[in-house]
Amino acid sequence: RPQLPSVAAMAQNQSYWTSIEDDIKVYLKKAIPIKSPETVFEPMHHITFAAPRTTAPALCVAACELVGGDRSQAMAAASAIHLMHAAAYAHEHLPLTDRPTYRSTIQHKYGPNIELLTGDGIIPFGLELLARSMDLTQSNQDKILRVIIEITRATGSQGIVDGQYQELGLQQLGTDLEIIEYVSRKKEGELHACGAACGAILGGGAEEEIEKLRNFGMYAGMIQGMLRINKNGSEEKIAKLAALALKELESFHGKKIELISSLVEPSLETVVV
Amino acid sequence: RPQLPSVAAMAQNQSYWTSIEDDIKVYLKKAIPIKSPETVFEPMHHITFAAPRTTAPALCVAACELVGGDRSQAMAAASAIHLMHAAAYAHEHLPLTDRPTYRSTIQHKYGPNIELLTGDGIIPFGLELLARSMDLTQSNQDKILRVIIEITRATGSQGIVDGQYQELGLQQLGTDLEIIEYVSRKKEGELHACGAACGAILGGGAEEEIEKLRNFGMYAGMIQGMLRINKNGSEEKIAKLAALALKELESFHGKKIELISSLVEPSLETVVV
Repeated sequence: RPQLPSVAAMAQNQSYWTSIEDDIKVYLKKAIPIKSPETVFEPMHHITFAAPRTTAPALCVAACELVGGDRSQAMAAASAIHLMHAAAYAHEHLPLTDRPTYRSTIQHKYGPNIELLTGDGIIPFGLELLARSMDLTQSNQDKILRVIIEITRATGSQGIVDGQYQELGLQQLGTDLEIIEYVSRKKEGELHACGAACGAILGGGAEEEIEKLRNFGMYAGMIQGMLRINKNGSEEKIAKLAALALKELESFHGKKIELISSLVEPSLETVVV
Repeated sequence: RPQLPSVAAMAQNQSYWTSIEDDIKVYLKKAIPIKSPETVFEPMHHITFAAPRTTAPALCVAACELVGGDRSQAMAAASAIHLMHAAAYAHEHLPLTDRPTYRSTIQHKYGPNIELLTGDGIIPFGLELLARSMDLTQSNQDKILRVIIEITRATGSQGIVDGQYQELGLQQLGTDLEIIEYVSRKKEGELHACGAACGAILGGGAEEEIEKLRNFGMYAGMIQGMLRINKNGSEEKIAKLAALALKELESFHGKKIELISSLVEPSLETVVV
């Protein structure tokens, strides 16, 4: 079993993730200024920053740095991933006539019509941001197109949307651990797998590194999903996923590994306690 | 005033547009097979083909051919434009609690939850289709990224979404011709402008051709929007838009011009009758 980090190392890891989160926030604030028409930009701004944090965008940046890339190369992709997540979150909490009422328990600043249309605007905006990050001096067009395919797949009908659809059935179906695992894979899992793979692609990682980081992201995301759904009896599965995630990092070397593995290390403890 | 085409020419023009529409349909049917999981693909298929026809995708193909490109070069972009339109149409007709009831008058085959999530899946799918059409042998990556930016803008917060938002206010605001014009520009106008520009970009058109075709598309689309809203007193404006559209084509030469101008020619007559 891998050794757990010391308190000093944990503080250092924490400040690494915080610095990435801060950079993404600055990038997004610049990309979505509150400007005219305010009826459009104010709700966009609100929905972008009201969505609960997910670590998939930060993982995108960390993966880019792990393979030797520069943080700036992953910033547009990380922001696009956050925007897709924020739009999905807004649409998931729309009060629709055929949804169980528990879905409407979040605070709504705007009416359903605005929340629907704003989400519809945020999805293409995220991809526009990414397409615009093409840099002819770096000839990164192939990488960006590849990353667009990664993100559209992870957030589309066979990714997050499938997870949302299945999760809405959870109340009816009970909470079978197998379905919880499926939902966690489709929602948080694929988004984190996509984040890590995109970061590795943009940072110039080798194909093998991209695939290992994709797997790491899948396990790390599934852990987050299972922690969110928080079902008794999933502790063992979570610890197993954490061990699998760390195994994917074994062939990488150097200090950045400690930083990126700190995303899943706390989950190793779930069986120890 | 430009001469109106003969009956024989009209039949020829009609069969040109029909052949394009057919090709797009075949492309889309192949892209969205009804396969497992059917809970995902069956509604995607339905929503894609249930949306009312818009001429923006066909205009994309016609613009590509007008500048000398091959039809196949525009097929992914034309399909993506149709998919964005179909998703927008589905979301526009979702029964939300704060929407006027007249919005719900269309037939709904699925519940609101499925229609919402399917639309959310169709948007990234359209862009994935486009990104996947990159062809290393043609080195078309720059063009595709440019087209992705065109489409995400036209369908986002400052394009269709803005038009939808404004149109929902039409009932309250009365039907001021100026607002009808604005809605027509944002909805049908920008989508057709985008379609024509994308076709010209992918077909290898010069920058000047791209901009002329973009303008043609804007006028042609606005006409469609104003015909759809169908307000008494807009006939004169529609005829003016048709004349402006045809003016943009003056510097192009050859048979393909007659084909593409047939999109707006019937509208010249609106003041004659």
